[in-house]
Amino acid sequence: LQLTAAAVEGLPEIEVGDDLATLIAPRLPFAAEDGDVIVIAHKAVSKAEGRVRALSEVEPSAHARDLARELAAQPEKDPRLVQVVLDESREILRAERGVLICVTHHGFVCANAGVDASNVPGEDSVVMLPRDPDASARAIRARFRELTGVAPAVVVTDSFGRAWRNGQADVTIGCAGLVPLEDWRGADDYTGREMKATWIAIADELAAAADLARAKDGRQPAVIIRGVERHVSAADGEGARALVRTAASDLFR
Amino acid sequence: LQLTAAAVEGLPEIEVGDDLATLIAPRLPFAAEDGDVIVIAHKAVSKAEGRVRALSEVEPSAHARDLARELAAQPEKDPRLVQVVLDESREILRAERGVLICVTHHGFVCANAGVDASNVPGEDSVVMLPRDPDASARAIRARFRELTGVAPAVVVTDSFGRAWRNGQADVTIGCAGLVPLEDWRGADDYTGREMKATWIAIADELAAAADLARAKDGRQPAVIIRGVERHVSAADGEGARALVRTAASDLFR
Repeated sequence: LQLTAAAVEGLPEIEVGDDLATLIAPRLPFAAEDGDVIVIAHKAVSKAEGRVRALSEVEPSAHARDLARELAAQPEKDPRLVQVVLDESREILRAERGVLICVTHHGFVCANAGVDASNVPGEDSVVMLPRDPDASARAIRARFRELTGVAPAVVVTDSFGRAWRNGQADVTIGCAGLVPLEDWRGADDYTGREMKATWIAIADELAAAADLARAKDGRQPAVIIRGVERHVSAADGEGARALVRTAASDLFR
Repeated sequence: LQLTAAAVEGLPEIEVGDDLATLIAPRLPFAAEDGDVIVIAHKAVSKAEGRVRALSEVEPSAHARDLARELAAQPEKDPRLVQVVLDESREILRAERGVLICVTHHGFVCANAGVDASNVPGEDSVVMLPRDPDASARAIRARFRELTGVAPAVVVTDSFGRAWRNGQADVTIGCAGLVPLEDWRGADDYTGREMKATWIAIADELAAAADLARAKDGRQPAVIIRGVERHVSAADGEGARALVRTAASDLFR
């Protein structure tokens, strides 16, 4: 088995309405095949979809102002940013030490509901997660097939912090054509014993692998991965929503 | 940027006292260079180090029996396995729904303190995590250098479940010669704004990438990764203990 991940170089700054498949296809480091996976940092997707808000047009509620004050971060949290985070959240799990840990409307648990002020031209704009990242991935995949005749899987990622471990790692928030979880539950290993690691978050492992293959300053949002054909499907499949652990099955909320 | 991960094929079943560097070096899919990373599933390391216990020799305490009964898993938890898990744990965070979420003596948070009954020949043996996985990685690296004259980084991994997300992903529990976290905190992106994803768990992303390059039935514990030279150091460095979030900075215990 061998896996190769290579960054897509020379993408322009993404703007609202941009067609990502059209921008990525001619810049791939090698021609895509059906079993490949194209991994795209969500910020490029969000910008193309116009999921950007100008803070100057945000009127923070009293709740957002209170929360910004309570967080007492250094530098202080902008109450308008807090308002955007609240708008993007279904629930706030923690609001302490300058950090808001949120459940997004999709069900993802992450800091600031994925709202991000970096890599955004325009002094006071922030980028939100795509409204439906699985739909974003499906649309990019369909367009890619239209343009090139091949349909690699498409994965949309973000960098999430984790409980218990330092640092962030990239995870998948949307995908099409990828089986996001590999299910070996109940299967035997080669000794005939039941296996322990049996439900593998392939999609998140791909997001992590892709992150290692690109520059971190925001100029290389797309990476192509070869060597995981066994996880790629012709059908778009259930998407990254399969990765969301239900609150009822979660011991850590 | 390009990353390649390739499995090491044809390793024998690992036994107590085996010299992993000697077994891996001649079987690498390409000759290792100083900037490469050799990723090894901990079970191979644990077996070589004799970190195996026979359940038939474990006398469960009253506490272990009670806990096994309370967990009420299907099939029922073996009180002897629970005893081994307790022996490997500094603290039990959750004991519900058939699952023990533990803080290991190293500080890792994972199910069953990483104690694993799969891929172990011998009906009633279980494998524990290495006592000091960073030391394990350093020893394998040193031996590799002795044998071959080159010193790739060495990473020891396990599959951990995660809060909030379904499925397991491989993470790093020990490493030598790798800078486990890439620190961009305070750095600017290309627009001059402060970056959001700024403290990147490189070691865990490498573990995840390696997991995609090997068979999951336990026959391919080792993977070599090329293309991440920028994270590899001549010094062994601080190891995976840097990935352990202190209880004081953890909002989810």
